Amino acid sequence: MDKKKKQVNNPEVECAKKLAAVEDALYVLGGKWKLRIIIALISGYTRFNELQRTVTGISARVLSSELKSLEINGLVKRVAHTEIFPVITEYLPTDYAETLKNLVSVLGDWGIKHKKRISISI
Amino acid sequence: MDKKKKQVNNPEVECAKKLAAVEDALYVLGGKWKLRIIIALISGYTRFNELQRTVTGISARVLSSELKSLEINGLVKRVAHTEIFPVITEYLPTDYAETLKNLVSVLGDWGIKHKKRISISI
Repeated sequence: MDKKKKQVNNPEVECAKKLAAVEDALYVLGGKWKLRIIIALISGYTRFNELQRTVTGISARVLSSELKSLEINGLVKRVAHTEIFPVITEYLPTDYAETLKNLVSVLGDWGIKHKKRISISI
Repeated sequence: MDKKKKQVNNPEVECAKKLAAVEDALYVLGGKWKLRIIIALISGYTRFNELQRTVTGISARVLSSELKSLEINGLVKRVAHTEIFPVITEYLPTDYAETLKNLVSVLGDWGIKHKKRISISI
């Protein structure tokens, strides 16, 4: 029945700080699609149709709205090539989006381990 | 207009693998609350009321259902201390939940950086 609070100066403050930081991250990256879209973008898919095919299950309406939200947060740059006809629009990951590579890799590694763990226990 | 696909053997397969791994992780950790509850648990909050106070905004009904889901996935152990009266119930993070510490830390670090970036640009 001991409180297993971490041996830090003030565990309540530490916990609140961690929660706030993770909430800030989830505010931008949370939800069903955003991280998946970022993975597809970082992997080199730049056209709307390619992205929709890669991020299985996403509708055009939702993909469009998620791309706008990612653009507002500085993670995607929308580029329209008006010099060619028909005009081609590309969605490119910004340098800032590249800072998510480590997070994606840690999350993916955990997912792989979790899948192994489940398949062993079944 | 070059496809900026990564120089790997088969970028499509690599991207699909990453997407699948991240989806496996998000299946367990996705949504608004699960990671926040895990942070509170790892920080040492073990009682239902403590958890509800710490994870701001969560309702008792949702907290209860999220704790059950985390228990099914082996991340939380529910312990009822029947030897004392009134019976006290604790929710303890499992060793498996501790494997999420790195992920929480990477996500939190990104959140902190993102907040700084936003406050500079405003």
